[in-house]
Amino acid sequence: MEKKIKVGVLGATGSVGQRFVQLLDGHPWFELGALFASERSAGKKYHEAARWFLPYEMPEAAADMVVRSINDIKDDEELAIMFSALPGSVAKDVERRCAQAGYCVASNVSVHRMEDDVPLVIPEVNSDHLAMIKRQKSERNWNGFIVTNPNCSTIVLALSLKPLMQFGIEEVRVATMQAVSGAGYAGVPSMAILDNIIPFIDREEDKMQSEPQKILGTLDADLRVREAAFTVCASCHRVPVMDGHTEAVWVKFEENVSESTIKEAFKSFHSDLKTPFAPEKPVILREEKDRPQPKLDRDACRGMAISVGRIRAGKMKNEIKYIAQGHNTVRGAAGASILNAEVMLERGYI
Amino acid sequence: MEKKIKVGVLGATGSVGQRFVQLLDGHPWFELGALFASERSAGKKYHEAARWFLPYEMPEAAADMVVRSINDIKDDEELAIMFSALPGSVAKDVERRCAQAGYCVASNVSVHRMEDDVPLVIPEVNSDHLAMIKRQKSERNWNGFIVTNPNCSTIVLALSLKPLMQFGIEEVRVATMQAVSGAGYAGVPSMAILDNIIPFIDREEDKMQSEPQKILGTLDADLRVREAAFTVCASCHRVPVMDGHTEAVWVKFEENVSESTIKEAFKSFHSDLKTPFAPEKPVILREEKDRPQPKLDRDACRGMAISVGRIRAGKMKNEIKYIAQGHNTVRGAAGASILNAEVMLERGYI
Amino acid sequence: MEKKIKVGVLGATGSVGQRFVQLLDGHPWFELGALFASERSAGKKYHEAARWFLPYEMPEAAADMVVRSINDIKDDEELAIMFSALPGSVAKDVERRCAQAGYCVASNVSVHRMEDDVPLVIPEVNSDHLAMIKRQKSERNWNGFIVTNPNCSTIVLALSLKPLMQFGIEEVRVATMQAVSGAGYAGVPSMAILDNIIPFIDREEDKMQSEPQKILGTLDADLRVREAAFTVCASCHRVPVMDGHTEAVWVKFEENVSESTIKEAFKSFHSDLKTPFAPEKPVILREEKDRPQPKLDRDACRGMAISVGRIRAGKMKNEIKYIAQGHNTVRGAAGASILNAEVMLERGYI
Amino acid sequence: MEKKIKVGVLGATGSVGQRFVQLLDGHPWFELGALFASERSAGKKYHEAARWFLPYEMPEAAADMVVRSINDIKDDEELAIMFSALPGSVAKDVERRCAQAGYCVASNVSVHRMEDDVPLVIPEVNSDHLAMIKRQKSERNWNGFIVTNPNCSTIVLALSLKPLMQFGIEEVRVATMQAVSGAGYAGVPSMAILDNIIPFIDREEDKMQSEPQKILGTLDADLRVREAAFTVCASCHRVPVMDGHTEAVWVKFEENVSESTIKEAFKSFHSDLKTPFAPEKPVILREEKDRPQPKLDRDACRGMAISVGRIRAGKMKNEIKYIAQGHNTVRGAAGASILNAEVMLERGYI
Repeated sequence: MEKKIKVGVLGATGSVGQRFVQLLDGHPWFELGALFASERSAGKKYHEAARWFLPYEMPEAAADMVVRSINDIKDDEELAIMFSALPGSVAKDVERRCAQAGYCVASNVSVHRMEDDVPLVIPEVNSDHLAMIKRQKSERNWNGFIVTNPNCSTIVLALSLKPLMQFGIEEVRVATMQAVSGAGYAGVPSMAILDNIIPFIDREEDKMQSEPQKILGTLDADLRVREAAFTVCASCHRVPVMDGHTEAVWVKFEENVSESTIKEAFKSFHSDLKTPFAPEKPVILREEKDRPQPKLDRDACRGMAISVGRIRAGKMKNEIKYIAQGHNTVRGAAGASILNAEVMLERGYI
Repeated sequence: MEKKIKVGVLGATGSVGQRFVQLLDGHPWFELGALFASERSAGKKYHEAARWFLPYEMPEAAADMVVRSINDIKDDEELAIMFSALPGSVAKDVERRCAQAGYCVASNVSVHRMEDDVPLVIPEVNSDHLAMIKRQKSERNWNGFIVTNPNCSTIVLALSLKPLMQFGIEEVRVATMQAVSGAGYAGVPSMAILDNIIPFIDREEDKMQSEPQKILGTLDADLRVREAAFTVCASCHRVPVMDGHTEAVWVKFEENVSESTIKEAFKSFHSDLKTPFAPEKPVILREEKDRPQPKLDRDACRGMAISVGRIRAGKMKNEIKYIAQGHNTVRGAAGASILNAEVMLERGYI
Repeated sequence: MEKKIKVGVLGATGSVGQRFVQLLDGHPWFELGALFASERSAGKKYHEAARWFLPYEMPEAAADMVVRSINDIKDDEELAIMFSALPGSVAKDVERRCAQAGYCVASNVSVHRMEDDVPLVIPEVNSDHLAMIKRQKSERNWNGFIVTNPNCSTIVLALSLKPLMQFGIEEVRVATMQAVSGAGYAGVPSMAILDNIIPFIDREEDKMQSEPQKILGTLDADLRVREAAFTVCASCHRVPVMDGHTEAVWVKFEENVSESTIKEAFKSFHSDLKTPFAPEKPVILREEKDRPQPKLDRDACRGMAISVGRIRAGKMKNEIKYIAQGHNTVRGAAGASILNAEVMLERGYI
Repeated sequence: MEKKIKVGVLGATGSVGQRFVQLLDGHPWFELGALFASERSAGKKYHEAARWFLPYEMPEAAADMVVRSINDIKDDEELAIMFSALPGSVAKDVERRCAQAGYCVASNVSVHRMEDDVPLVIPEVNSDHLAMIKRQKSERNWNGFIVTNPNCSTIVLALSLKPLMQFGIEEVRVATMQAVSGAGYAGVPSMAILDNIIPFIDREEDKMQSEPQKILGTLDADLRVREAAFTVCASCHRVPVMDGHTEAVWVKFEENVSESTIKEAFKSFHSDLKTPFAPEKPVILREEKDRPQPKLDRDACRGMAISVGRIRAGKMKNEIKYIAQGHNTVRGAAGASILNAEVMLERGYI
């Protein structure tokens, strides 16, 4: 790439916003051009506005950048992409304004995910859905557009389901054990989670039960998604783990599929993506009896691969069970948006 | 009770053994008469032999008791009950010797659980199975007998299923989040579990998939158990929690059952047991959106009640999902054996 | 006690406020008469206003009590004592208003602790300082009065120093390892403390460096405290522990004192207090090589005793080192205020 | 370096042994030539013998290497350096045999550290002590030699003291909060440390109280170390942290030294070492009010730098206090031995 493309981060001071800043540092294609946050942070240097908590030094380029208000985004910023980690309450309005003004909004926020003309994309799964961008721009009469990535726990699940779609999935049950970083910096008090499990995450089960069918659906000629026909039933739980969501998955197929067939499907699954954040192997099969584990596997392929393991025949007919694991703020959030943007750039959408 | 009954503890120095010692302290019916452990501990006072790790003072009566070898148990000890927390490797032999010699062996060990003439009992669920004792003694020509309680994670599951049996259970899927105390004192290194999930517990899924059907089965006239007809499929995981197993459960019924019917069934479930360790309410329904939690609910009814919550209609036909939680070393182990012994005493088996 | 005395709790919904409510439940002398909190909670029932997080059921008497605003406290409430767990920002004003109106304010808050006419009391250490109440009422022309207990980490330290005062303490250095409950429910995010140590607690070192000298000082005839002459230097750290502060202490004496003398001093230290919350033994000496530990020792004497151990000769002249541990929200906060109130009642101050 | 030097690892399957294997992978100067462990592991491939627990894939070069017995080391292995992570019980004998046979033994084990002719080296502090190798070889009539690095907690302390030596240190008090990885994989059971502090680490205080004076001592013309004259008094504690030892340090100087002078000394301290593992900055000064923290700072300079912060004037005369932190298995163990070996190679000792 001759010259890097300038990008902005919306909601730059929060948990996922910090991940964007960290992951974009040294990115070969993208360059941080602006940081946007609430009025409260506006005018401060980033290192003053953000309570940095990642185990890396704050990137120098970002540290002295003055944070700007999300209310002061101009239509002609020298920015091509807006990565969005905004709180749900303000995301709808700000993301739409940005898309209308001509920016590519690569959003990690849930508000637009299920809209009929908004691509919900995991590139290794459904990059063809990006074609919906054309319909979105035309129907909404926008100069730019919004592309979303799924919820963190959905990404892990959907990536693991992709290689199994060929066998005819009918039902999916999933119990999650989700890391605290998924709730944002102050989301889970230590008094709530030390030596404890919280068997509830607000709206999480709904997302897991609806997003996978869109992601794993097929794009029709009229640029509409025909959702995949399987049903998902999720039970979501918070555990005292820093990073990495672990998921116990049951998949019921139309007919019997053997353990070895499933393993082979995971093993042979690969992606053609060659962009900077694309993992060499999106789904890593662990053969040990007690893997994957978040502490050992969350950083596989720099946090961009998920790991699966413990493939076992279930006790019910045509059912197998397995464990999936992925880094929730890298593969499951900021890294997902960046990978989406890379693919969009490569394919000429930006 | 005019005079307390003397009891022994087999495997008294280990994790569950210590729980027996702690729970028996001050018991209104039972009195600690002897502590048995391996040759290595034999001859030492209990406070020297056991690396006590419970957050209570070691009971004075036990502290100065001299630990005896499990190889030196005589046939005529002044003991009526042997509570067994032996390691699997030696349990089979020692428990049988004790039963033959005339003791009531109330065992928390798995080796005898699935034997055809050994009662596997949760008193609130199937105390009638104790009638098998007669057959066991007669067929084996023993003076005493062995009665077992289920695996810790099974007890939580089976207790929660009991009130639902009336609706016709077809399938049960369960994902566990199990406390480290279930593995014994040195079972889970801190380096393995801090900031981590281990999605594997040796032989645990097998136990959960076979024990519930025996417990919830019916006793035929020939004193044999006809197992319940449902299928269980379990996925077992270790989490960084001290005590208390949490379980995400999906139950598929023969026909549709509403959330409110399920809640009502949990609420109205009660037990007639009035013995010292019997909880006032064996299954507590929590109505909060984020309960039960191990830290908040494991000590309910002094650790002898399980808690259920988050009753939700599943996405699949005739299915509901819920969360169950129980204290794994009290309700799920030592307390379970003691409650069994109380009921046996009350009903004249001892 | 013929009839229980009615008491109120100021700041009843917070972390320490909940402890007050829990500890007062079933108290033989005191009866919960009113719960006060911010305007935001006022008008709600306590079980709606408080996000209860203690591993006990919310006391029934409190659950349905309607929370009242701290701005609506009348001068003639049917309450004799106000237990205060208010945030520092509002405590000064509200506590003074209450004292002026005639209530006994037993406060866990820091704002008034170091005021010249306010007793800072640990009953086993300096209950005689309560005599200052007379001066306070007279000088301030108040109908009631304020009595405070020290900061949680100070209580553990000062209680452990009391038996050593007889040997002439010159210098005290202390490194704390403090539980997260000391910071209140939302005080320490899990992302900040899981797998981590935070070597900073706001204003904590100042409190530890100034409060002990007042507590261990002597009361002169004019009802003024002459502070103890030793110097304290503290380093305070937050650790991933739920409850129980652990402190590594170095004490330098005027002359050499042997380890055995120190142990004897701890062992023989006792208190004459016989009130309900007074621990049978305020300072428990643990002789094991690796005690005290918060998980094992914090609940000693229902959380009201501190534990000390690892008494060792230091490497520097006339110095010994040891470990002290105590429950920070029981002995170190709500329990401390309640014990103060009990002693005041017994001695006729209320 | 034209051709890499072949090295062996003694005790390769344990906690520190695994770190050696991981850190040596891809090392520009050294190449793994052999892995030695107990008889039990001998003959197995490394991936079978070692229960790998590091959050990196096991290096391919090591995975298929056949582990050999420490009893079968020949005198003429094609290895120049033996990195030792042996258990203390066998280290003495094996290390001596290796040194006698001609190998450079770079040892992380404590047995030889305090011997009069064995260098105890932190290169940034006392690389000149390596000159003792000559005396060791000559006096012991060995073809090779043993060089040791200090205990993990000593390394953090001694590195932080080095820049302060110029001010005349008289007394050092230190309270440690040590990570569980310091005790080896099975060293600390999770039941012992979850939600807990263990205020005892076997022999740790002795090491911290004696090693720093040797490291910070001066080498006389007769190649003997004259120990530094200050006294160290340590209190050591285990905390529920994975990696990274945190230390609260009090230093008493001969005369008054200001906070800003200390900060300046830390800031301006640097090392001339340019070898692969030498950190750009051995001691990093953090100016934030709540740093260093193990989770955020342990990986500074790939784990080879320590961090200091919270420099504060103490309350006692001529005393300052601060916090030091370092990665215990990288900078404090395997990385320390590797850095020692690099410096020895560069200076012609190997």
